[in-house]
Amino acid sequence: MKHNKIRSIQSSQIGNVITVCGWIRTIRAQKSFSFIEINDGSTLSSLQIVADVSLPLYEDLLKKLSTGASISVTGELVESLGKGQRWELKAHAMHLFGTCPEDYPLQKKRHSFEFLRSLAHLRPRTNTQGAIARIRNALSIATHLFFQQRGFLYLHTPIITASDCEGAGKQFLVTTLDINKPPRHSDGNVNFTEDFFHKPAYLTVSGQLNAETFACAFSDVYTFGPTFRAENSNTSRHLAEFWMIEPEMAFADLDDNRECAEAYLRFLLRYVLDNCQEDLAFFERFIEKGLLNRLQQVAETEFAHLTYTQAIAILQKSEQSFAFPVEWGIDLQSEHERYLAETYCKKPLVLTDYPEKIKAFYMRENSDGKTVAAMDVLVPKIGEIMGGAQREERLDVLEKKLRLFGLHPEDYWWYMQLRSYGTVPHAGFGLGFERLVLFVTGMENIRDVIPFPRFPGHAEF
Amino acid sequence: MKHNKIRSIQSSQIGNVITVCGWIRTIRAQKSFSFIEINDGSTLSSLQIVADVSLPLYEDLLKKLSTGASISVTGELVESLGKGQRWELKAHAMHLFGTCPEDYPLQKKRHSFEFLRSLAHLRPRTNTQGAIARIRNALSIATHLFFQQRGFLYLHTPIITASDCEGAGKQFLVTTLDINKPPRHSDGNVNFTEDFFHKPAYLTVSGQLNAETFACAFSDVYTFGPTFRAENSNTSRHLAEFWMIEPEMAFADLDDNRECAEAYLRFLLRYVLDNCQEDLAFFERFIEKGLLNRLQQVAETEFAHLTYTQAIAILQKSEQSFAFPVEWGIDLQSEHERYLAETYCKKPLVLTDYPEKIKAFYMRENSDGKTVAAMDVLVPKIGEIMGGAQREERLDVLEKKLRLFGLHPEDYWWYMQLRSYGTVPHAGFGLGFERLVLFVTGMENIRDVIPFPRFPGHAEF
Repeated sequence: MKHNKIRSIQSSQIGNVITVCGWIRTIRAQKSFSFIEINDGSTLSSLQIVADVSLPLYEDLLKKLSTGASISVTGELVESLGKGQRWELKAHAMHLFGTCPEDYPLQKKRHSFEFLRSLAHLRPRTNTQGAIARIRNALSIATHLFFQQRGFLYLHTPIITASDCEGAGKQFLVTTLDINKPPRHSDGNVNFTEDFFHKPAYLTVSGQLNAETFACAFSDVYTFGPTFRAENSNTSRHLAEFWMIEPEMAFADLDDNRECAEAYLRFLLRYVLDNCQEDLAFFERFIEKGLLNRLQQVAETEFAHLTYTQAIAILQKSEQSFAFPVEWGIDLQSEHERYLAETYCKKPLVLTDYPEKIKAFYMRENSDGKTVAAMDVLVPKIGEIMGGAQREERLDVLEKKLRLFGLHPEDYWWYMQLRSYGTVPHAGFGLGFERLVLFVTGMENIRDVIPFPRFPGHAEF
Repeated sequence: MKHNKIRSIQSSQIGNVITVCGWIRTIRAQKSFSFIEINDGSTLSSLQIVADVSLPLYEDLLKKLSTGASISVTGELVESLGKGQRWELKAHAMHLFGTCPEDYPLQKKRHSFEFLRSLAHLRPRTNTQGAIARIRNALSIATHLFFQQRGFLYLHTPIITASDCEGAGKQFLVTTLDINKPPRHSDGNVNFTEDFFHKPAYLTVSGQLNAETFACAFSDVYTFGPTFRAENSNTSRHLAEFWMIEPEMAFADLDDNRECAEAYLRFLLRYVLDNCQEDLAFFERFIEKGLLNRLQQVAETEFAHLTYTQAIAILQKSEQSFAFPVEWGIDLQSEHERYLAETYCKKPLVLTDYPEKIKAFYMRENSDGKTVAAMDVLVPKIGEIMGGAQREERLDVLEKKLRLFGLHPEDYWWYMQLRSYGTVPHAGFGLGFERLVLFVTGMENIRDVIPFPRFPGHAEF
C-alpha cells in the first residue's frame, strides 16, 4: 500500500498527486467542501484534506467519516489558503478503512493525563503522547549516535539475575515454581533448586557490574535496557520498570566520567533542539513556558563543578532556610540540590566526592579516607539526572568495602576477579531514561512519558 | 586519561607520538627488545609494542608484565617490519595498571566455548567473544539505521505484563510476595491482590500486541527489547532471555511485510559486510568456511516466494525422504524448511499463507477460509529466521478467532478496541536477535552469542 508520510511532504511536491493514510482528527462539512484533518503520527501536524462534496463518489463515504476513522486519500498537493498550514490535499479519491463510532473516547476535547493513562492503547493518538513518543525516539537514537561516535560498544546486559548489583533496592522475584504449592525442603522453606534457574532469581536493578566486565575487555561500553525496582512508591517520579543508559569506560577517572556525562547530556539536548522543533514548541506552548530556554541553556553552558564538601559549605553559608538541616555527611535532599543548581550556580552542576558512607560499595575510595570518587549531575528543575562514580579497582580496598557494607566477597567472586586480572581504573554513570524525558518535555508525571507504565497495582495492557 | 583506541590508529599517524591502553595478549622477550601485543577491544587486531630493554626505566617494569596485565604505552608509531601487522609502537614510556597472576584462566591457548561460558566475566577478552560483541553492536546499530531511515518510530514495549500475547508460551511469574508464606484466600489459593501489581504478572514473550497499539497511531513502529520463554529447553537454539526486534506497520499488507523483512535482512548483511570485515574474516577462518559467500549471497539475491500450499506440493514431489511425513496442514519441520531453502530454491525464501490452525489467533484470515496471511522467512543453514503476519483487523473475525482458540475476548478488550476505532490493515514480523547473530557469525550455540546467557539452571553473573 504505497503512501507518503505526512512528515515527508515537502513544498517541492506542490502540484504532485500523492496518497496519504491516517486517522481523522476533525471533520468540518461546509456547503461545497468538507475539510478533513488527518494525522498519521509521523509528525504533530495534521494534513488538511479538501473534499468536493459534489463529486458523487463521496456522497455515501463522507457520511461515514468521523473523528478517529481511518482513511487513505489520493489527491493533489496544493498551497493552503487557510492559516496554520502551508499546504493541503485536494482529494481525488478516498478510501475508508475503518469507521469510528460515537463512543470513541478521544473526541476533540482536552482529557486529563490521568484519564488517558487508563487508555494506554489509544492515548498514543493524542498530541501530547504523540510528541512524547517522538521525543523518546529521538533521545534513543541520539544516545546511540553519541556513544557510537565515541567508539563505545553497545552491550545487552542481562535482565534476569541471581545477583543484586547494589546490595540494596527491592527486587522482583522471577520464578516458574507453582506459587500455590512450591516444593519445600524438610525445614519448610521453598526449595529453589527446583526453580528454573535452580536458585532464586530476580529482575535486575542495574547492568553496571556486568558492564564493568565488558569495559575490562572493550574499553568503552554502554547499555540501554530496562531495569526494575520493586519499591512500593506511588509517586510521580517512580516506576517499577524503567529504561536506563549506563556507560562504562576503562582507563578513565572521575574527570573523564564528568566530561563524558556532560558531553552526552549536551549532545542529547542539541539533538532534540535541532530535530524535534515542532514537538518541543508544543511542549513550550502547552506544558511549560520557558522550556526551550531551559534546554538551550543546558545545551550551551559549561556545567559547574563543586565537591560535596564545597557544596555543604555553600549551603551552610546560604541564607536559605531548608527543611532538612545541612551538615557534612548528610544525603543531599532535592531542596539542597535545586538551591545549588538553580540559585547558586544558576546552571547545571556536577557534584563530586561524596562521603563514603552514603554511596555504594563499588565507588573508589579517595585518599582522604572519608570520601569516594562519586558524582551526581544536577540540572535546574529536576535536580539529580545522572549519577556515577569511578569504580574501586584495587582488590584489597574493594574487599574491605564489601565487608564494611555487610556483603559477602564470595558472592562477588567474578567482580573481584576483574581486579585480580589486569585491573584498570574505570568509571561510569547511569541515566534514567524517563527522568530525561521529563526533563526534555517539561511533563510532570513519569507515568506519562513511558508507553505502558508499570507501578503498584498497574501492569495492564 | 587521554589515549587512542587501537581501531582508530591510521597510517597517517606514522611518526606521531600516541598513547594506547589495553591488556597484554602475548609478550616475547628478546635480547635487546621486548615485543608486547596489547588489545583494547576496539578491534580484533592487537597492536605490537616494541620496548627497548636497555632503557633503565623498563628493567623492573618488564618483569611484572604477563598475559592479561593492563598497561598504557606512549610511543612513536612506526611501520612494522614484521609480518601480520602494518605498524607498531616504539615505546617511550609505559605504565602498568594491573598485573595478572599465573592463574589467569585465559592463557594463550584455545579454550572450549563451553569452558568459556563458565567465565562469562572474562571471555569478552577472547578473540571469538570480542568479534561476536562487535558484530552484535553493528547489527544493533544497523537495525536502528534501517528503521529510522524508513521513518519508523522506536518504541519501548513493557517487560512485565499481566497479559499473555500469544495465549501460549510458558512465562516467568514476577512477584514480590513472600513465596515461603504467600497470603492466601480462604480457599487456600494465593491472594494475588496483595502482590505488587495486585494480580499475577509475567515476563513478556512478545511486544507485538503493544506495538500494534502504537502502529495504530504512528503508522510504522519497531521494538528492540528483551523477551522471555520459561520453557525448559536445554538446546543450543533456545535461551530463556533473548532480544527481539518487532516492526509493526499500519496501512500494510502481507506483501508490504515481506518487502520490509527482506529489505531489513539484506540491509543488516550489507552493513556487517561493509563495516565488520576483520571480524567476519575471523569467523570465516576459524568458525565456518564459506561464511562470507553465504552472507554475500543473501545480501545480493532476491528472496524466493512460495505459499505454504505450493511448498507442500514441492516437498511431496521431491524425492527427498523426510523423517516427518509431508501433508497439507502439518507444521513444517527444520528438514522441510532447509530442503526448500537450500535444495529447491537455493536461496532465502519467504513462505506465506499457512493453515489457520497452526498459526496464532491474531493472523489475518484469508478468503479461502482455511489459511492465514502469515509468513516465515527461511534462510540457508538456519531455516526460519523471521516470522510475521498481516494482523486480523476485522473485529468480528478477530472475536471469532479468539473464541476458536479458547481465549476470552474480554481479556483482549483493548486489543479489540483497535479494531473498533478506526481499524486499519496492518502487519509486522519478529526477528530473534541471537538467531540473527548465529546466522551472521556461523557460531553453533546460542549461549555463545549473548553476553550473559540465561537457560535452565543458569542465571550467574
